[in-house]
Amino acid sequence: MVTLSTLSVYALGGLHEIGKNMYAIESANDILIIDCGNKFPDENLLGVDLIIPDVTYLLENKEKIRALIVTHGHEDHIGGIPFLLKKINVPVYATRFTLGLIELKLKEHKLLRETELIEINPNSNLTFEELNVSFFKVTHSIPDCLGIVFDTPEGKVVHTGDFKFDLTPAKNEHSDIHKMAEIGKEGVLLLLSESTNAERPGLTPSEQMVGEHVEEAFMKAERKVILSTFASNISRVQQVVDAARKTNRKLALLGRSMVNVVEVAMKRGYLQVPEGMLIDQQEINELPPERVAILCTGSQGEPMAALARLSTGNFRGVDILAGDTVIFAAGPIPGNERNVTKIVDNLFTLGAHVIYGSGSTSGMHVSGHGYQEDLKLMLTLIKPKYFIPIHGEYRMLHHHQLLAESVGVEQGNTFILNNGDVVDIQEGLARQTRKIPTGNTYVDGVGVGDVGEMVLRDRKQLSEDGMLVIVLTMSKAERKMVSGPDTITRGFVYQDYEDLKKDVNRLITKTVSDLQEENRNQWKVIKQHIKKAVGQYLFAQTKKKPMIVPIIIEI
Amino acid sequence: MVTLSTLSVYALGGLHEIGKNMYAIESANDILIIDCGNKFPDENLLGVDLIIPDVTYLLENKEKIRALIVTHGHEDHIGGIPFLLKKINVPVYATRFTLGLIELKLKEHKLLRETELIEINPNSNLTFEELNVSFFKVTHSIPDCLGIVFDTPEGKVVHTGDFKFDLTPAKNEHSDIHKMAEIGKEGVLLLLSESTNAERPGLTPSEQMVGEHVEEAFMKAERKVILSTFASNISRVQQVVDAARKTNRKLALLGRSMVNVVEVAMKRGYLQVPEGMLIDQQEINELPPERVAILCTGSQGEPMAALARLSTGNFRGVDILAGDTVIFAAGPIPGNERNVTKIVDNLFTLGAHVIYGSGSTSGMHVSGHGYQEDLKLMLTLIKPKYFIPIHGEYRMLHHHQLLAESVGVEQGNTFILNNGDVVDIQEGLARQTRKIPTGNTYVDGVGVGDVGEMVLRDRKQLSEDGMLVIVLTMSKAERKMVSGPDTITRGFVYQDYEDLKKDVNRLITKTVSDLQEENRNQWKVIKQHIKKAVGQYLFAQTKKKPMIVPIIIEI
Repeated sequence: MVTLSTLSVYALGGLHEIGKNMYAIESANDILIIDCGNKFPDENLLGVDLIIPDVTYLLENKEKIRALIVTHGHEDHIGGIPFLLKKINVPVYATRFTLGLIELKLKEHKLLRETELIEINPNSNLTFEELNVSFFKVTHSIPDCLGIVFDTPEGKVVHTGDFKFDLTPAKNEHSDIHKMAEIGKEGVLLLLSESTNAERPGLTPSEQMVGEHVEEAFMKAERKVILSTFASNISRVQQVVDAARKTNRKLALLGRSMVNVVEVAMKRGYLQVPEGMLIDQQEINELPPERVAILCTGSQGEPMAALARLSTGNFRGVDILAGDTVIFAAGPIPGNERNVTKIVDNLFTLGAHVIYGSGSTSGMHVSGHGYQEDLKLMLTLIKPKYFIPIHGEYRMLHHHQLLAESVGVEQGNTFILNNGDVVDIQEGLARQTRKIPTGNTYVDGVGVGDVGEMVLRDRKQLSEDGMLVIVLTMSKAERKMVSGPDTITRGFVYQDYEDLKKDVNRLITKTVSDLQEENRNQWKVIKQHIKKAVGQYLFAQTKKKPMIVPIIIEI
Repeated sequence: MVTLSTLSVYALGGLHEIGKNMYAIESANDILIIDCGNKFPDENLLGVDLIIPDVTYLLENKEKIRALIVTHGHEDHIGGIPFLLKKINVPVYATRFTLGLIELKLKEHKLLRETELIEINPNSNLTFEELNVSFFKVTHSIPDCLGIVFDTPEGKVVHTGDFKFDLTPAKNEHSDIHKMAEIGKEGVLLLLSESTNAERPGLTPSEQMVGEHVEEAFMKAERKVILSTFASNISRVQQVVDAARKTNRKLALLGRSMVNVVEVAMKRGYLQVPEGMLIDQQEINELPPERVAILCTGSQGEPMAALARLSTGNFRGVDILAGDTVIFAAGPIPGNERNVTKIVDNLFTLGAHVIYGSGSTSGMHVSGHGYQEDLKLMLTLIKPKYFIPIHGEYRMLHHHQLLAESVGVEQGNTFILNNGDVVDIQEGLARQTRKIPTGNTYVDGVGVGDVGEMVLRDRKQLSEDGMLVIVLTMSKAERKMVSGPDTITRGFVYQDYEDLKKDVNRLITKTVSDLQEENRNQWKVIKQHIKKAVGQYLFAQTKKKPMIVPIIIEI
């Protein structure tokens, strides 16, 4: 007898993009969600604060959802959690450090009390209706990361989380290669593996390299050292702490996320800071500069973060002075280069010694995502029958497919999916035929999902050419202009417009009276004609297309 | 007797920035301008099309201006010329190829007829009242580039233009190292040298390397080859032509600037294309794909350029198909990475074989700007007493200073200037004490210099949070609301606003009646209070700050 039970795998985010990772494994009775991240908007999404996955499909299948399992605590894996929890109250499973970061978020959104948080570790085993779950430890650029093994009626499905191989990582951050080998030996039906660095040949360099460079820079520095990195990269923070200790410096933390995350890491035992090393920012100026180090946010050039403010002398009470050393211990993420170099320039202007550039030139950063050889090693260890490259833009997924085939995954057994594409597995055979609804949900102020294409199109036009509001007061009875036209501009070129104003008013008056002669008196028709006439006139005169907003006041 | 004559050197653009290069040498009676470029706005300058130098100072000293001398034909050196010529009709000196590109621009701006264009070559000598000018050939990424020597009463001033050293460049593009050595031997007072790659160690690779890689890719390609590069890089275009010839392919040109620039280069003898090789785009589909190559614009990911349109299937009559090879023969300029990778992704989706990445990884691009060893060689050849690093952001100028000092320029003899800072030289002594007015002039549609900070601030607010227009009709006599309030939003979240509308209207009505009770009836006061009350209310409700535009219609 043929079983009707199918195993389905799909992404609600993370494919053809970097960010908002969210994947799911679905059997007849269970849905298990893996991660729920956010993504930052590019410059075309004017005014949008965040992008999160559209979870319409999950809402429709609420009763099947058993768990949200989180691989690690980066924003692109946890940033969407509060928004999901507001709609679906699902238990959240994560390791101790990851839970610490999730709790910070839930507090902010006032969700901590009603959420069920369950701490897991690499040895945990979870049992759901048809799906059993176990884990293996992976190395990444944040503590306490997991790969996940789903035992399903169809066989094992493995999700790598984000990973690299690093034989000399920070303490307790070794990948469990033995367990991976064992899983592979038992036989794996399907692997989902991350693709961020699938374009880069070789093996990721070890975090140890950064430690050595940081220490060297601290040794050489004759005055204050200011180092900026991702707050969540606790191994790197530990290396800074160690370098500060060796060079007899006190350490100040600047920037809200740095303070918060370091606190979580210390409280939960992921970061060892010598008693008395941490100082408040007020104490910085009380010590000789060669006794001070500062660890701060803003390595990506974020304009409101600590480093940007320090670089322009706008951080109250803390100054970067000639002879200070500033270290960017993070490479710029594509898109952030301009903001970063602006800060580098400002720092040089202050007379600082600045160590910057990509990790490979400065030695101050290594990636947390495996390069091609790391990815091939994972594929070789897990030996899956089927493969879905995840976590990446199309070209990364494409390269990952080639890597998989180079280490033995059969041609035709790799699925390059889009968000929403479903791979169904039945009797050991995988097929991709159907789609579930998915997409981007925009967070805009307190609004979630309110901003649509029309609003964004309007913002785009307003941003480039501004607007012209035209107010006509018309008598209801005679349908004639009683006063006006009055026009107001914003964001449109002021000087020019003052010269054009008379012509525009004349054009409006003529448009209205022409229509009246033809007895075309509906407000809608009048507005349309004014919009068209004034728009064409202004474009001919100025080559700009301000948004024309005609308003008719009836009296 | 002490002479009162002073020699002054300053930049009107090009310092602390990449772009809008414009420098000047001024003696008692002469001003000679070097280059007049433009710069593209970053994403904060909403709606601005171009940035050009503010030439107020030159306008005030019009009668002293003898010449605009142009080092080469890149946009950041010639893009501002039409705007300058509209204000000051100065004779333009440039080499044959550079003049060809300038003429294209002047035609567009209908300035060709009234402009005096004077062709020069590396052996030209120009004589002005106190200043004599000669030239030397430099290698760059466009044909026919010059360095300039100014013979002044104070001594020689040398301006390098943009350059690299390349011992195997394209035909006729060798740097005249012998002449540089001779100039240096005669003694140079001041060198202005470009700083673009002052951060990069080593010597720039040769353009020859690109030729070899292009040829190899053409050999390997089994179907169409599509290569995108800067149209003005004629050496590279020649290498593409050569590779097409060797692999027996016809060549089609796509994109307006590619067609225009190639035409200039062919007509003026800078590019040799075999008879019958060039085909129209209509002929592409009539030939077998292995017999076709396409050279197109858009290597920087420009959304409207040929390559972007090809990558999304929106170039009428030309399709990129599975198995075609697409080559990016230009590294992405910082800030363009995201647009480029979007196109790379689309091309992979079409099944194309894509060769992309920085030049050092793909071998398909080398920089036209000298690295550190090139810059040191120039400094060594010219042996100046004083040095002004030009053409670069602050960190580049800073590194160039260090390089200069490493090859013997005395400490204290390098001037890191800002645009407008003047170095005055008197009796062989250089000093920087004064400033001339300078800055950015924004081109916005047909407006030049009309857009100011206020307009840009308005556009920023409109772009992020949209606007809310409030119209009140008030009786002049009783100063009471006759109708309204009417409110209209654009770019603000529509759905939310509909829910808020009643509250907003109630708030406006209350604000007006409260003021009336206090007898505060001036329209200005009423508007201010409405703006504040509604703004605060909307921010509290939505965390957005739409622009509030209150309009009062008096009847």
